[in-house]
Amino acid sequence: MRKNGRGELDLRPILLEPRVSKHAEGSCLVRFGDTHVLCTASVDEKVPPHVYGTGAGWVTAEYGMLPRSTHERMQREAARGKQTGRTLEIQRLVGRALRAAVDLRAIGPRTVTLDCDVIQADGGTRTAAITGAYVALVQAVRGIQKRRQLAQDPVKRSVAAVSVGIVAGQVHLDLDYDEDSTAEVDMNVVATGDGALVEVQGTAEGKPFPRAELDRMLDAALAGLSRLKELQEAALRTP
Amino acid sequence: MRKNGRGELDLRPILLEPRVSKHAEGSCLVRFGDTHVLCTASVDEKVPPHVYGTGAGWVTAEYGMLPRSTHERMQREAARGKQTGRTLEIQRLVGRALRAAVDLRAIGPRTVTLDCDVIQADGGTRTAAITGAYVALVQAVRGIQKRRQLAQDPVKRSVAAVSVGIVAGQVHLDLDYDEDSTAEVDMNVVATGDGALVEVQGTAEGKPFPRAELDRMLDAALAGLSRLKELQEAALRTP
Amino acid sequence: MRKNGRGELDLRPILLEPRVSKHAEGSCLVRFGDTHVLCTASVDEKVPPHVYGTGAGWVTAEYGMLPRSTHERMQREAARGKQTGRTLEIQRLVGRALRAAVDLRAIGPRTVTLDCDVIQADGGTRTAAITGAYVALVQAVRGIQKRRQLAQDPVKRSVAAVSVGIVAGQVHLDLDYDEDSTAEVDMNVVATGDGALVEVQGTAEGKPFPRAELDRMLDAALAGLSRLKELQEAALRTP
Amino acid sequence: MRKNGRGELDLRPILLEPRVSKHAEGSCLVRFGDTHVLCTASVDEKVPPHVYGTGAGWVTAEYGMLPRSTHERMQREAARGKQTGRTLEIQRLVGRALRAAVDLRAIGPRTVTLDCDVIQADGGTRTAAITGAYVALVQAVRGIQKRRQLAQDPVKRSVAAVSVGIVAGQVHLDLDYDEDSTAEVDMNVVATGDGALVEVQGTAEGKPFPRAELDRMLDAALAGLSRLKELQEAALRTP
Amino acid sequence: MRKNGRGELDLRPILLEPRVSKHAEGSCLVRFGDTHVLCTASVDEKVPPHVYGTGAGWVTAEYGMLPRSTHERMQREAARGKQTGRTLEIQRLVGRALRAAVDLRAIGPRTVTLDCDVIQADGGTRTAAITGAYVALVQAVRGIQKRRQLAQDPVKRSVAAVSVGIVAGQVHLDLDYDEDSTAEVDMNVVATGDGALVEVQGTAEGKPFPRAELDRMLDAALAGLSRLKELQEAALRTP
Amino acid sequence: MRKNGRGELDLRPILLEPRVSKHAEGSCLVRFGDTHVLCTASVDEKVPPHVYGTGAGWVTAEYGMLPRSTHERMQREAARGKQTGRTLEIQRLVGRALRAAVDLRAIGPRTVTLDCDVIQADGGTRTAAITGAYVALVQAVRGIQKRRQLAQDPVKRSVAAVSVGIVAGQVHLDLDYDEDSTAEVDMNVVATGDGALVEVQGTAEGKPFPRAELDRMLDAALAGLSRLKELQEAALRTP
Repeated sequence: MRKNGRGELDLRPILLEPRVSKHAEGSCLVRFGDTHVLCTASVDEKVPPHVYGTGAGWVTAEYGMLPRSTHERMQREAARGKQTGRTLEIQRLVGRALRAAVDLRAIGPRTVTLDCDVIQADGGTRTAAITGAYVALVQAVRGIQKRRQLAQDPVKRSVAAVSVGIVAGQVHLDLDYDEDSTAEVDMNVVATGDGALVEVQGTAEGKPFPRAELDRMLDAALAGLSRLKELQEAALRTP
Repeated sequence: MRKNGRGELDLRPILLEPRVSKHAEGSCLVRFGDTHVLCTASVDEKVPPHVYGTGAGWVTAEYGMLPRSTHERMQREAARGKQTGRTLEIQRLVGRALRAAVDLRAIGPRTVTLDCDVIQADGGTRTAAITGAYVALVQAVRGIQKRRQLAQDPVKRSVAAVSVGIVAGQVHLDLDYDEDSTAEVDMNVVATGDGALVEVQGTAEGKPFPRAELDRMLDAALAGLSRLKELQEAALRTP
Repeated sequence: MRKNGRGELDLRPILLEPRVSKHAEGSCLVRFGDTHVLCTASVDEKVPPHVYGTGAGWVTAEYGMLPRSTHERMQREAARGKQTGRTLEIQRLVGRALRAAVDLRAIGPRTVTLDCDVIQADGGTRTAAITGAYVALVQAVRGIQKRRQLAQDPVKRSVAAVSVGIVAGQVHLDLDYDEDSTAEVDMNVVATGDGALVEVQGTAEGKPFPRAELDRMLDAALAGLSRLKELQEAALRTP
Repeated sequence: MRKNGRGELDLRPILLEPRVSKHAEGSCLVRFGDTHVLCTASVDEKVPPHVYGTGAGWVTAEYGMLPRSTHERMQREAARGKQTGRTLEIQRLVGRALRAAVDLRAIGPRTVTLDCDVIQADGGTRTAAITGAYVALVQAVRGIQKRRQLAQDPVKRSVAAVSVGIVAGQVHLDLDYDEDSTAEVDMNVVATGDGALVEVQGTAEGKPFPRAELDRMLDAALAGLSRLKELQEAALRTP
Repeated sequence: MRKNGRGELDLRPILLEPRVSKHAEGSCLVRFGDTHVLCTASVDEKVPPHVYGTGAGWVTAEYGMLPRSTHERMQREAARGKQTGRTLEIQRLVGRALRAAVDLRAIGPRTVTLDCDVIQADGGTRTAAITGAYVALVQAVRGIQKRRQLAQDPVKRSVAAVSVGIVAGQVHLDLDYDEDSTAEVDMNVVATGDGALVEVQGTAEGKPFPRAELDRMLDAALAGLSRLKELQEAALRTP
Repeated sequence: MRKNGRGELDLRPILLEPRVSKHAEGSCLVRFGDTHVLCTASVDEKVPPHVYGTGAGWVTAEYGMLPRSTHERMQREAARGKQTGRTLEIQRLVGRALRAAVDLRAIGPRTVTLDCDVIQADGGTRTAAITGAYVALVQAVRGIQKRRQLAQDPVKRSVAAVSVGIVAGQVHLDLDYDEDSTAEVDMNVVATGDGALVEVQGTAEGKPFPRAELDRMLDAALAGLSRLKELQEAALRTP
């Protein structure tokens, strides 16, 4: 039995609290159980060099953890002078995932930066970040639409993410830190609201896994993602 | 008249919410109006080289701002690869201020690190950080006392901080961002619960100021600090 | 039709040239068509802190590209002063993949570092690197076995990697640079010699993909990996 | 009794030697006893981005210590790869102080950079730097006035600085290194030639100090500053 | 007797293999015995600021060693975050040497970057790099000549380099790593094909050396350089 | 005719002022005309890893230029975050040169660091630095001898350096900045007091030079070096 009576295919209690920032164009404090991530969307009327002059816009993400968001205090990346490989990998993933949600040409020549800062960590920070950043991104895009005449709606589809793994031989959805530490296989699935895949990353932690397990994990993840989609929609309806 | 009907010598609404972190040995989310700072205290059973072998402990602080805590998004210091001079200056100030609260010998050979991370900024982040970090520090020290037999109470006195300035020729207490931007003189005062001075930093922003103004600003700051002391005590009594 | 008459499910011409370095304990120059990666394995009789004292060893990887391995010259990472997120992500992947091949406890308290340096790039450098690094790693481990009495054979299974993608709606195996640039979905599969999965990373480049495509890509990748395993075995038999 | 028979409210022997550099537009070698700081003023016909286009100019400062200016050799900041928090804090203070001396609009679109390099240190390097940099700045401004038709004299007021502290319970002016190390309170005062305050920074080193001590320290500092102003004027009259 | 029956004034077996890179405008894999350096020449239609606007071009070089090119594995400079002093010194030398070969005005406003990457090291990497980079540079210049109408041939003279030293009291040409480690004097000579000097760097490793030894070393070096010139010409004639 | 009536083979006015630092174990302010370098020698009772445990000591050097030591202000290396290739090259040269002066075994397990900081630059800073650093080094070694019983005198020979070049077709000794900028060949010669060579670095600035010019430059340099040796001896006799 999992903590708090959770079933193997249940998500943790999920909370998506939109509009928590006084300054940002979009924001969402997302909680997957004890994992809390503050996502903000900032709109800048400039684009990076590789997009400049094409008329299209850009969506990018940055990720960070507060030094004591974790069980043991981690060194502050700003003090250390560089971001770890894990941080860079996560923020590249979050950026790719959110670019799948929008039509960059329809956004026009501006950049939306999604800052995902982990206030408290208990496993699954990258999947919580993607799920919350989508809410912040949509708010920011709606704001652009209000201020500018956009020919088309830039939001093409919803995007969310969840982790899934094999713990003690069984598929478990939405792993917390303790489960993640003992999982035999760990997978992150990013998908759209109608179940198409955006990114799949599965890793054997101990020993290699048969393809059949990949299938069972995908089943579980897609079920969870369909629930996350409803919660995102509810959050976006909150005035 | 100031925003929200505040009088010139009034503090903004102050909230000190203790024990907000699942992991940290001490924590406090402090709000001075729209300025919100998350302060955590982490205890490490090691000391830095300059204290090593003396039997004494150490208290230090780190400070950061989330990239979109401010009106315009700032570059992430971790991505930039170094902390700004302003950040280093503030975290040195916070560390000095908090060391005045404790007897480092009584703490024993361990380090308490105070992380002050600005979630939302509206002026006065460094004074809010000091005021909240004191609450987190005392919790962490009480925890050490529970786990270890300490000969003496390491907490010697309370410490808080407030800003004060001259805006449009008048002394104003606890400046918000707009007031700070137009202040002629800006001063931060760190003091103990019984009104002794720990640090005074006054700066003419535009033109030099007569000594009499320094006196009037100190009067206002010390009155505010006495109110902050009561709020710190109340927060520490919260179970 | 693909370049050089290659069929959609064919690998490029693969060459694994072992023992190319005068100094390294293991080495292999691997070619996947015009992608050439020099892999060396270096044995050091030390272990990193997180393994220290456990009796176990460690396997890690570093990755780099020569500045003109690519079509346009890239800035040298050493001159730039830091490794890109892409580099860090790849070297973390290569390290994880190769650790799946060995029993770290059986290696004993020493570190094997796999340096994968891209001499010439034409797509698939990370999968070529994993495939070649396995050959270099086994040589280095055999060398340790000769010098030391090891109770058990540390090599548990072979590991190789290949890319697969959807190009113009069709599954293609082992993408070259031009194919990779136009692929709709891009996936890297790391697996053992008997077809168990070590790591699966699939990314929608343009629009999300249905789960059925994931299945077809896995079929193609596993077929290619079984051929790579034979070539690794042949290379290791070369005197 | 202080070293060399100095009274508690006496400055150390002060020497302001102007025009010591063959290349700089302004320069002054300043000595406060055994503390020697070389100050140069460099004029550049460009301005930083935050001033660009406003027609105004800018004054900024940099500070450094030669590695063996101190009793024990310090690591060279250039070799270490970054400036310490102390260095950044001091150069920000020197810049703010000197900007109080001039009308940035009257300077026109150019930058004056004040480099303050400590040749030998014995306490009070930042106050010596400010005092000497004023002399270098005025020379550089006079040079600009000669080469360009400026509508107004950009020099608005003189600025100097001195330290003051409580040592063994008594107010002491202009602390040397040994006094500074044992001071209970340490304060730096920057003021104009007619006694208006530019910056006040007072810090309790051991225990908090009553407000009355702040007053007595200010009395002593302002007396010293009036003497420094005369020495600056004399240096500027030197042909 | 030297390794492999080499006489004191003999070069090691020299191989200059041109056109080894699919992407670079010029390339040469150079071998001086077991020292192997891959040299590529990349043409960029831009020039650095100090040449901008003069109509002239620029030739520059970068140098690196693969981590396991050496007997013991070296730390990767990209991971370390900066290039060593030795690397910077060598790449400055290679750049100066190759600029002596060409008329920068005749090249026109473009930059040729010579990347010299040591694949395997056994002494004399900088002299091999210069010798091979010349071949890559000429190919790249010939390519520019084909694509653009250049008024004049930019190649003014050939340039090559060789090391020479005093080992056990005797002059030795083209030192390998073991000889270099025990040499009493070590000298690198860069010269043109007709024996004029471009750069001479001689260093006493142990004790200072009389001027007569400098003369004898120069005799040996110039003889070797005349042989290198022939090999460069042969490589450039290779289709 | 050269500036100030100097002949082609004359040194500039040379001043070696020893014992200028209150703190350093050895120091010398050296002036070669308008080039002024402050050299200090610092003794540390530790050695770097590559010497540790051998009983021997180490001599090393660091070099820096004050930002406005030059005609145009240069960026401060500490602010830039790294030392230039030129700086690293010079400090490596100065260190090698001074190690030729002493018996590292006789020094015992301690490090002498020579800091050479250019106060004002007018050409030849590296040769002035070596010449002055020798004086500082000998003072520091004499100090070690006084405090410790050393079996042998660690000073084996004197070392000095001078530049020489071909300007307008003629050999010129000790080039100033203007001469250096127009020289066709530039050479730095480090030699012992009795004329043995420690390091020779000659570089063609424009076109390659015949070997006969190398000989004529060496003649001039060695004559100058014999004069520098006398001035070093005189400086060391100064009480």
